[in-house]
Amino acid sequence: MKTRTEYDSMGGVEVPKDRYWGAQTQRSIENFPIGEAASMPLRVIRAFGVLKKAAALTNCKLRVLDEKKAELISKVCDEIIDGKLDDHFPLVIWQTGSGTQTNMNVNEVVANRSHVLDGGQLGEGERWVHPNDDVNCSQSSNDTFPTAMHIAAYELLVEETIPKVRGLRDALAVKSEEWSGVVKIGRTHWMDATPLTLGQEFSAYVAQLDYGLKSLDRSLEHLSELALGGTAVGTGLNTPEGYAEAVAEKISALAGHPFKSAANKFEALASHDAIVESHGALKQLAVSLTKIANDIRLLASGPRCGIGELKLSANEPGSSIMPGKVNPTQVEALTMVCAQVLGNDTTISFAGASGQFELNVYKPVMIHAFLQSAELLGDACAAFTERCVVGMEPNRERIEEHLSNSLMLVTALNRHIGYDKAAEVAKKAYTENISLKDAAVGLKLLTDEQFDRWVRAEDMVGFI
Amino acid sequence: MKTRTEYDSMGGVEVPKDRYWGAQTQRSIENFPIGEAASMPLRVIRAFGVLKKAAALTNCKLRVLDEKKAELISKVCDEIIDGKLDDHFPLVIWQTGSGTQTNMNVNEVVANRSHVLDGGQLGEGERWVHPNDDVNCSQSSNDTFPTAMHIAAYELLVEETIPKVRGLRDALAVKSEEWSGVVKIGRTHWMDATPLTLGQEFSAYVAQLDYGLKSLDRSLEHLSELALGGTAVGTGLNTPEGYAEAVAEKISALAGHPFKSAANKFEALASHDAIVESHGALKQLAVSLTKIANDIRLLASGPRCGIGELKLSANEPGSSIMPGKVNPTQVEALTMVCAQVLGNDTTISFAGASGQFELNVYKPVMIHAFLQSAELLGDACAAFTERCVVGMEPNRERIEEHLSNSLMLVTALNRHIGYDKAAEVAKKAYTENISLKDAAVGLKLLTDEQFDRWVRAEDMVGFI
Amino acid sequence: MKTRTEYDSMGGVEVPKDRYWGAQTQRSIENFPIGEAASMPLRVIRAFGVLKKAAALTNCKLRVLDEKKAELISKVCDEIIDGKLDDHFPLVIWQTGSGTQTNMNVNEVVANRSHVLDGGQLGEGERWVHPNDDVNCSQSSNDTFPTAMHIAAYELLVEETIPKVRGLRDALAVKSEEWSGVVKIGRTHWMDATPLTLGQEFSAYVAQLDYGLKSLDRSLEHLSELALGGTAVGTGLNTPEGYAEAVAEKISALAGHPFKSAANKFEALASHDAIVESHGALKQLAVSLTKIANDIRLLASGPRCGIGELKLSANEPGSSIMPGKVNPTQVEALTMVCAQVLGNDTTISFAGASGQFELNVYKPVMIHAFLQSAELLGDACAAFTERCVVGMEPNRERIEEHLSNSLMLVTALNRHIGYDKAAEVAKKAYTENISLKDAAVGLKLLTDEQFDRWVRAEDMVGFI
Amino acid sequence: MKTRTEYDSMGGVEVPKDRYWGAQTQRSIENFPIGEAASMPLRVIRAFGVLKKAAALTNCKLRVLDEKKAELISKVCDEIIDGKLDDHFPLVIWQTGSGTQTNMNVNEVVANRSHVLDGGQLGEGERWVHPNDDVNCSQSSNDTFPTAMHIAAYELLVEETIPKVRGLRDALAVKSEEWSGVVKIGRTHWMDATPLTLGQEFSAYVAQLDYGLKSLDRSLEHLSELALGGTAVGTGLNTPEGYAEAVAEKISALAGHPFKSAANKFEALASHDAIVESHGALKQLAVSLTKIANDIRLLASGPRCGIGELKLSANEPGSSIMPGKVNPTQVEALTMVCAQVLGNDTTISFAGASGQFELNVYKPVMIHAFLQSAELLGDACAAFTERCVVGMEPNRERIEEHLSNSLMLVTALNRHIGYDKAAEVAKKAYTENISLKDAAVGLKLLTDEQFDRWVRAEDMVGFI
Repeated sequence: MKTRTEYDSMGGVEVPKDRYWGAQTQRSIENFPIGEAASMPLRVIRAFGVLKKAAALTNCKLRVLDEKKAELISKVCDEIIDGKLDDHFPLVIWQTGSGTQTNMNVNEVVANRSHVLDGGQLGEGERWVHPNDDVNCSQSSNDTFPTAMHIAAYELLVEETIPKVRGLRDALAVKSEEWSGVVKIGRTHWMDATPLTLGQEFSAYVAQLDYGLKSLDRSLEHLSELALGGTAVGTGLNTPEGYAEAVAEKISALAGHPFKSAANKFEALASHDAIVESHGALKQLAVSLTKIANDIRLLASGPRCGIGELKLSANEPGSSIMPGKVNPTQVEALTMVCAQVLGNDTTISFAGASGQFELNVYKPVMIHAFLQSAELLGDACAAFTERCVVGMEPNRERIEEHLSNSLMLVTALNRHIGYDKAAEVAKKAYTENISLKDAAVGLKLLTDEQFDRWVRAEDMVGFI
Repeated sequence: MKTRTEYDSMGGVEVPKDRYWGAQTQRSIENFPIGEAASMPLRVIRAFGVLKKAAALTNCKLRVLDEKKAELISKVCDEIIDGKLDDHFPLVIWQTGSGTQTNMNVNEVVANRSHVLDGGQLGEGERWVHPNDDVNCSQSSNDTFPTAMHIAAYELLVEETIPKVRGLRDALAVKSEEWSGVVKIGRTHWMDATPLTLGQEFSAYVAQLDYGLKSLDRSLEHLSELALGGTAVGTGLNTPEGYAEAVAEKISALAGHPFKSAANKFEALASHDAIVESHGALKQLAVSLTKIANDIRLLASGPRCGIGELKLSANEPGSSIMPGKVNPTQVEALTMVCAQVLGNDTTISFAGASGQFELNVYKPVMIHAFLQSAELLGDACAAFTERCVVGMEPNRERIEEHLSNSLMLVTALNRHIGYDKAAEVAKKAYTENISLKDAAVGLKLLTDEQFDRWVRAEDMVGFI
Repeated sequence: MKTRTEYDSMGGVEVPKDRYWGAQTQRSIENFPIGEAASMPLRVIRAFGVLKKAAALTNCKLRVLDEKKAELISKVCDEIIDGKLDDHFPLVIWQTGSGTQTNMNVNEVVANRSHVLDGGQLGEGERWVHPNDDVNCSQSSNDTFPTAMHIAAYELLVEETIPKVRGLRDALAVKSEEWSGVVKIGRTHWMDATPLTLGQEFSAYVAQLDYGLKSLDRSLEHLSELALGGTAVGTGLNTPEGYAEAVAEKISALAGHPFKSAANKFEALASHDAIVESHGALKQLAVSLTKIANDIRLLASGPRCGIGELKLSANEPGSSIMPGKVNPTQVEALTMVCAQVLGNDTTISFAGASGQFELNVYKPVMIHAFLQSAELLGDACAAFTERCVVGMEPNRERIEEHLSNSLMLVTALNRHIGYDKAAEVAKKAYTENISLKDAAVGLKLLTDEQFDRWVRAEDMVGFI
Repeated sequence: MKTRTEYDSMGGVEVPKDRYWGAQTQRSIENFPIGEAASMPLRVIRAFGVLKKAAALTNCKLRVLDEKKAELISKVCDEIIDGKLDDHFPLVIWQTGSGTQTNMNVNEVVANRSHVLDGGQLGEGERWVHPNDDVNCSQSSNDTFPTAMHIAAYELLVEETIPKVRGLRDALAVKSEEWSGVVKIGRTHWMDATPLTLGQEFSAYVAQLDYGLKSLDRSLEHLSELALGGTAVGTGLNTPEGYAEAVAEKISALAGHPFKSAANKFEALASHDAIVESHGALKQLAVSLTKIANDIRLLASGPRCGIGELKLSANEPGSSIMPGKVNPTQVEALTMVCAQVLGNDTTISFAGASGQFELNVYKPVMIHAFLQSAELLGDACAAFTERCVVGMEPNRERIEEHLSNSLMLVTALNRHIGYDKAAEVAKKAYTENISLKDAAVGLKLLTDEQFDRWVRAEDMVGFI
């Protein structure tokens, strides 16, 4: 590999000749051979593109950065945002806990690429744009990395996760309406219970997702606050007056989302409770989705030896050894994602609680876990919707069969003969393996006609 | 032990002669000898008192319950609410997952106690009030237990947890204001950084608690929804028209909190996302409190070989072997509580995700973990406030000593001589163990006067 | 309340006249009004009884404690071990993280009770036995509390948890053998699969518990190591030569378990990896038990609209509104316990990771969570065994019905007609709702006789 | 993109012309667009290479597979093991929970590549080797995927994780020995305590890792058991006699590790307690490593305003804004990894508990989380060792300064003047900010000479 020498305050380092990064990035590559290369999420890198551009433009406006430098920096940032420089961000998550090395990676790439855009040769001649003094002007890793975290997290939630979860919610709502007339047996404790409609059953799923989406939505407020302007410890040292608000405004404009300057910069550097809070809402959704997906898996079980009340479409052969088997594979993918989100919540809570003094140094692991949860939940909901929910059909014969077999319709008799006598009826029917009506009439507790009038499944679902 | 025989739909059981409970409670005692006796939280029992009273009054108003029965039931419920019958609730958390046995424990106690209030002898004569048909009228365990969960959780949060956390927040805010002029060294990565004021440092804690309290507050909306009226599976079978709304109103009036009937009863029985959501906010607070308490522990460390910037009052001798030792014991109690809350969040997430079909059967463990978190967090915050925070004092000599020793004041020079040269100054000072000024002047980068004008800690904290 | 004045190194405090505790205990009561009173587990207090007695006898033998003092201390310790002084230990878990206050509570009770046993009046005259110099002789909270943790944890595991889990394992093994001839349909992905016997299905549960018990058993080695002899920081300051080994031997003799002196006392104070390790094994068991209990819940579901392959005995009426309902309540209690154990594992991991320098100060929360898990798991297994497992019976008609309906017996044809053609058979049978045989013969892939010879459920289960 | 048509039992699908995968793989790509592409770990794919080869050879030997087919399959498997076909495994973790699609991906690639190795053209002519009937002969996804899980997990632990953790343990042991004479102040509750040596402090870390490694080592036994031979539900349907043991032996030979056939195949398919157990040991290590790394971070804090007792080498510039700052970056990477491992343990516990009947369908998420933990822990330990631990040096001046300042040397006086008087000395010294000796002599409790004889830090560390 051909190299050139790059320098930082500790001396010279060899870097690949054709890469824009500099000495500090290279040191990080060498110091942190942990896990897969380039694991720092590209969403974070692109968020850096946005914030560095906003900072350059704001610095220029506030007259602490030369206009031409600001222009060059902006251009490179656009390339970063467009994904044209992805190969120049080789660092891993498992680096310094402040993300300093990724901030410097961006600073170095912007400085070197500016030099080239300005007509220079990479690694030759004096760079006009300095990675620290110019690209990082009015910034510190300590305020840029959390800013990038919030931009990336907010964008992903608003642009991907929320719409996809909402898509699932809407598909479930369609089914709930469609099936409002399908009376079926209820199950509590996994035991036969009183009836409800399939539509009612699905309305609970819709309600769960509505609550979860509301939680997620509320958490956006905290997430929209940006640390930028706090610099090293929150005091804003080395920033021009008005900078924090101006740069937040610029970022909002560039990103198209309503970001604002954090009310308390000390909190924004030292803790990441916004990430904890918002991931808490993702975790709530994972809890709900596990319940929902599990129910669908169970309702569709069989086809002959399970519950079998729902039919799922067959997306693929289910088994490498059992011919003709069809499995609820979308359910499985979604519930595995939920298991990951639950684990990520532990990681984020532990990491969030571990900040000390003016800085939390678990930033990379927190944003990685967050973005993973948000992306996987969104993707899995979309796949689940499209490839499972929309094609589901009730198995009406099976539903009818279960309904007519159940003993719990006896509950309708409480009002007429009291709980204790109704229990006698149910027991007789169960023990003698006969119908409820035969048991009730046999016990002389009511007549045939009374039974038919009082015990009607379709009358037992309409109270709410 | 003297006993009497009580009956349920399965036959007769011997119960202690002087206890109001009946057959089903006794069966539960015998079937679930798991952990400490009577572990079902009394807060749940009292919430049952409220809801059974509200149900009786509403049933009476809607003409499905006799007036005298309603009156008797109400009276017993008042005794339950006042804690007069605590000894009659012997059941454990680790029973059926719907809490049916606790619901029946309440039903039986109310029925038997009504009999006695009505002039009867316990265990003799026909009971006029039936545990199922009357006390449980228009109810099921499946909607009463979650209703009791929400009442108990909401009350505890609003009456205890939130005020106590707010008390801590306010005490920290007082300190933050009081110490707004105390300039001190900042620390990032546990390494000396640029300065800030002690007041700014504490303002982050205030901000964290403000966010946490806002999260908790928002979660109350979901928690204020009551399942009552859904009965067995959410359809409201066996309830009179208008019951759900009327009983929620009555509960609100009795409890003095704005409860309302759950928008979707199916969701309210089958999932406990309101508990998951609200405990998520408690967990967020535990994350914040861990950070805050840890910082205080660290700032107060020493007294001679630690950081030593804060002085805590000595509440007790700290060591059984080291005379004169004083420890940050309130910090330790609070952080242990936070560890418990983090674990409870795992329990609640796992349990919340495990509901199936029309019922979640992890209700008792969920409400137990929730109430434990809410109570401990509140109590620990109150103790921490009163016995630690209000008495804290800065150790000004130590703070001054650290500030004047730090090398990171060099950051103020970036604007004047650039990052690279400023780094040289810091390194020279560190390596030669001299002051920054000597290093800077020694390198001929600036004059004595310039240094004194540019590097002033008190000028480095005022940007925000 | 009548009081007397007790003194410690910080001055005098009023304590209840009739209680043996002293000034430091009283300070702790007042400083930590957190959660329920007296929540420090009595198992820890009794373990303190054992270790204080062992220490006194060893100190006497090594000539650093007067013989009469040792005798008095021993006597009081016996009373503590026998539970006679339970009312004198009022402290909570949420105190100092070293458990110092509980150590002092024991020291004070022993000193004051010694004074009384020696003929003195509580609170009058000079105490001959000093809580620190005598009862705590050659000890520190820092080594006594972890010693008590290990004694209490080890005893509970060996005397309760392990035998009760093993009892469940054995009951499942009996069923596995008993049902070795019951051929039933297998289920994978919740879909019908190839057959196995009910005995084989249950053999997996036995195997799971065998592995879990082995894990737990292996963890006892670390848990058997005692910190005693390390005193304040692990160096053993203020202990006589040979003390650590001698006192461990004495504890082993008193407790009847093979304890030994910790190989590294610094580790034994600063970390609680033995607790983390051993609770990891409890968590593994909770994972296994969740699977096992869930399967039983599912197999027993119905009775008419679920799987219904197992019959559980009815221990209690299942519903307050649905007459005659029987629920898998023991399953529910057990799986709720498992949810608690999973949460406790998070608490213990977080707390275990949070030690710093020479001491972990999350000791009380760790031992509380540990003992809770160990006790609940044991108790729940015992109840589950006795009240659910031993009475379970297969529903042979249902099992047979499922078996003969399933399409997955087609797998037996792979060897004869290949996977692709076998898949055609299964699909035809499913689509046309006919039997496999009819489909296979209809497709002219084989003859009636071949089908009968090749597709025999009972031949499909005997390979292993 | 050019495509060809591939077929499975559901019909034809277009796949990229130059890829070896077939219809089922392609369906999976289209059905599961969740997260990053090709996220199924390559370690799993390679483990499949080993097991498919072993199965082919064993099938051949047991005469259920043609010799030439076995040879072709073996050759392709070697290519897979050597990483030559990595581009042909495009599937994600978030697919069916049995990993069936990855099993079929391997089957299809082997079949198609065999066809090419045999002289055929990809997509043309009849394939002689069938993906199900031949490559998957005597197998099911249900036993191959867990087998691949165990092979991949075992290999990674034994070849990477354990040696790297042991490397750290050894480096810490070297330091512990080297620093056995460095007497320093101890710290408990973050407060000054009695002295110990730096070597003793580090010996605790060595002991922690020894215990963790022992736990990990013990878990290998369960992990060495292979499910192969159980096929669809554990009965071994469609396998020749002696197959399970023979194929395990073959795998052992190929992999160079002592694998064996699982004692209970039903357990091996339906649960993944071996993964739970082994990851429990990784989690224990993460707990220990968090403590160890944190201590080093704290000891090295400063350089001027922290503890400052250790000096770490500067691997990179620490700050983008604060010149000359050096941070404990290796500590931060390691502790972030530990946070991830703690979260993964939650994921694995939840997933492990969620198996049902004959199959756990959370296999891919479990093995992904496991491999991530094992790889990251190993890598982070190696980097931490090489780039942090080996270069650490004590700051002897600072250590000496702290030692001579501390008040807790007073503990040595307990034996001579009793705890209460010693406490007076410490308090006087603290309050008046004087030395212990001055305080002790001032209180006339002992003479100058006695103090010098009794209070000697170096005599206070030698007890153990």
